[in-house]
Amino acid sequence: MDQIAILTIGNEITDGRVVDSNSAHIAQELRLARLLPLRMASCRDDEAEIVSTLQFLSRDVSAIIVSGGLGPTSDDKTREAAASFAGVELELNENELSHLKEVYCMRGREFEDSNRVQAFLPKNSNPIPNRFGTAPGIDMKLEGPLRIFCLPGVPREMKSMLSESVIPALLASQREKSELQVKAFHLFGIPESVTARKIRERGLPEGVEIGYRPHFPEIEVRLSSFDKSLIHEASQAAREVVSDYLFSDEEIDSLPKRVGRLLRESRKTLSVAESCTSGLLGKLLTDESGASSYFLGGVISYSNELKESLLHVPKEILLEHGAVSHETARAMSEGVLKLSRSDYALSITGVAGPEGGTEEKPVGLFYIGISNGSVTKSFQFQFPSNRDYIRTIAAYSALDTLRRFMLGLPFLGKP
Amino acid sequence: MDQIAILTIGNEITDGRVVDSNSAHIAQELRLARLLPLRMASCRDDEAEIVSTLQFLSRDVSAIIVSGGLGPTSDDKTREAAASFAGVELELNENELSHLKEVYCMRGREFEDSNRVQAFLPKNSNPIPNRFGTAPGIDMKLEGPLRIFCLPGVPREMKSMLSESVIPALLASQREKSELQVKAFHLFGIPESVTARKIRERGLPEGVEIGYRPHFPEIEVRLSSFDKSLIHEASQAAREVVSDYLFSDEEIDSLPKRVGRLLRESRKTLSVAESCTSGLLGKLLTDESGASSYFLGGVISYSNELKESLLHVPKEILLEHGAVSHETARAMSEGVLKLSRSDYALSITGVAGPEGGTEEKPVGLFYIGISNGSVTKSFQFQFPSNRDYIRTIAAYSALDTLRRFMLGLPFLGKP
Repeated sequence: MDQIAILTIGNEITDGRVVDSNSAHIAQELRLARLLPLRMASCRDDEAEIVSTLQFLSRDVSAIIVSGGLGPTSDDKTREAAASFAGVELELNENELSHLKEVYCMRGREFEDSNRVQAFLPKNSNPIPNRFGTAPGIDMKLEGPLRIFCLPGVPREMKSMLSESVIPALLASQREKSELQVKAFHLFGIPESVTARKIRERGLPEGVEIGYRPHFPEIEVRLSSFDKSLIHEASQAAREVVSDYLFSDEEIDSLPKRVGRLLRESRKTLSVAESCTSGLLGKLLTDESGASSYFLGGVISYSNELKESLLHVPKEILLEHGAVSHETARAMSEGVLKLSRSDYALSITGVAGPEGGTEEKPVGLFYIGISNGSVTKSFQFQFPSNRDYIRTIAAYSALDTLRRFMLGLPFLGKP
Repeated sequence: MDQIAILTIGNEITDGRVVDSNSAHIAQELRLARLLPLRMASCRDDEAEIVSTLQFLSRDVSAIIVSGGLGPTSDDKTREAAASFAGVELELNENELSHLKEVYCMRGREFEDSNRVQAFLPKNSNPIPNRFGTAPGIDMKLEGPLRIFCLPGVPREMKSMLSESVIPALLASQREKSELQVKAFHLFGIPESVTARKIRERGLPEGVEIGYRPHFPEIEVRLSSFDKSLIHEASQAAREVVSDYLFSDEEIDSLPKRVGRLLRESRKTLSVAESCTSGLLGKLLTDESGASSYFLGGVISYSNELKESLLHVPKEILLEHGAVSHETARAMSEGVLKLSRSDYALSITGVAGPEGGTEEKPVGLFYIGISNGSVTKSFQFQFPSNRDYIRTIAAYSALDTLRRFMLGLPFLGKP
């Protein structure tokens, strides 16, 4: 498969004034076209820097896609640098010049003499049409298999030229036709290091790549191979050793989405009662549009007064067992179920810290309550960590508890 | 001035699965410290690739800052590559090993044997402490003036290690010893581009660097200079042109923290009623420990039924004006104020999209209600954007509305 390098040019990138999102866009488009983005670099608007970076990037690749530095001002150096890298002169392209003049005229703008530079191209290169801007791109074939494509840095211009001209040109020149196979699955409740060890111990066939992409607190495992049967076998093997924690084998997924689909498919509704997470669970459940068909809302009972007055958690439970307890978690879930008349209710109460922990109720201890009206359960979890992590893990543990409840799977929390 | 290169490592970057925002952050921090970020590259988790990229980047620079690839799994190659680039072996650092074991123990996680790799450092290098994660960084001096710093790719860990260890180390090794002066201030309600234009038009004295750190939807403006009187003058000038949007001139701050301080200092309590944000405002208010002294909780009224049954929004209002209206926002804030008996109540109702917009009530339209029992107000805002942005802007607009209400400042929303 053809390996490709990406170069973005501009002082605003190397100075950190803008985040370079062009590189990620180009890489993603390449991957979707089953081409292999190999490496990326960004350099200043400086001819010598651009030439030396092109030299570095060119090793083992069949193309370099460059973006930025094609404008009409004196700090745009890409045209000169591309010519210098190829060891050729820039020459005026008369077609491009008259096209440029037309574009300026159509837009009611005066054609300044300084704009002429945009019609100069390295000798033996071809212009790439630009539907949204003035500067044409450059398509330049070098000795060996190397090809350089120069595109503007303006995202709209770059994106259309990439998908309309560059990717089709790369696909047309590909030698191998084999396709990269990718399989992904998603885990919750197991650390990345344990996942990696289990899969390593199980062993994967040669010729399969594995990658771990943590989306805290979830883990995405990705396998890739050029062999269709191999990827299937490897994916089965890897999934088997972590099946207790697997919640999805869609390519793109998350636990909130998974739970949303379960509720929608079974036409059930959900409400929540949150103490230490204080709205985070409700927020996660509504990150995707369309949640209103299954999520009704609920109560943020951050204070004990609201647990009593709104959720009707009995005062005796709060006094005897405390706000962070199995009993309070169950009473909270039953309380919000009644208030909202939902089919399921989830509750969370815990010590998110860093203050407020005791020996009996340490920071990181939390309880999840779940009720469907006829059955109410509660589970204890403990993740001593920082406040952010504890609250995030608590909200995801609630979602996972509901998933296991609905699917009849064993629970991860302590009953 | 010292020139620095930046290297980010990870297949998720070269594949375009994530946008590399670490490089821009590092470059910006370097520039504010009057160091010169010269060039950037990103490469795959592959030892040979990392080594050859380090070689390329090292020309004419005094340091390379590397981020990513320090995790415990087999696809983390940065440690090996750094040692190989320096021509040394990796060796076990016993201090780091016992520290690692402590961290795992404190978090209640089992210390797997595979985690030991994180305690291996290239010979003659020093560990960089990591307050937020497990893997220490690496500080490695090579022959000549070259120094390599390896940091994790997790933004929170990388950022704190960069500002607490790497930048101070770079400044300490600089030939100039004059002390860098930094002033920061924080804005909400004005786009970064408008902020930058206003300050550029006002003009800053020579010898002052300016940087914008967007913490969406807030903007932090940072000024730096080696001249104490200059920085004072520049900071006054810059603040003046955006004073209507300035909420803090602490070095580190956020709108939720600012509002928390206002409530705590005036000994007032707050409750919330959230529709389209569905818990995000409650979550933001409790991101810091200690919020229980002023935040009571509230209601997530995602469905209209809960707006009626729990918040007592009159059915006529919902029928006549709709759930997304001045009237509903006011009724929601009054409803939750009564339920919780708080001193202030905030409400949010809007169209977060992408579905559900109409001509009259388009995606991005939201209303903020605020009540203190005797006065109730509501404000209309409109930010056509994606769901995530709209919900975040709505939650922050509610916080800003409370701040302006408490301080008697003019409001940004339309009454």
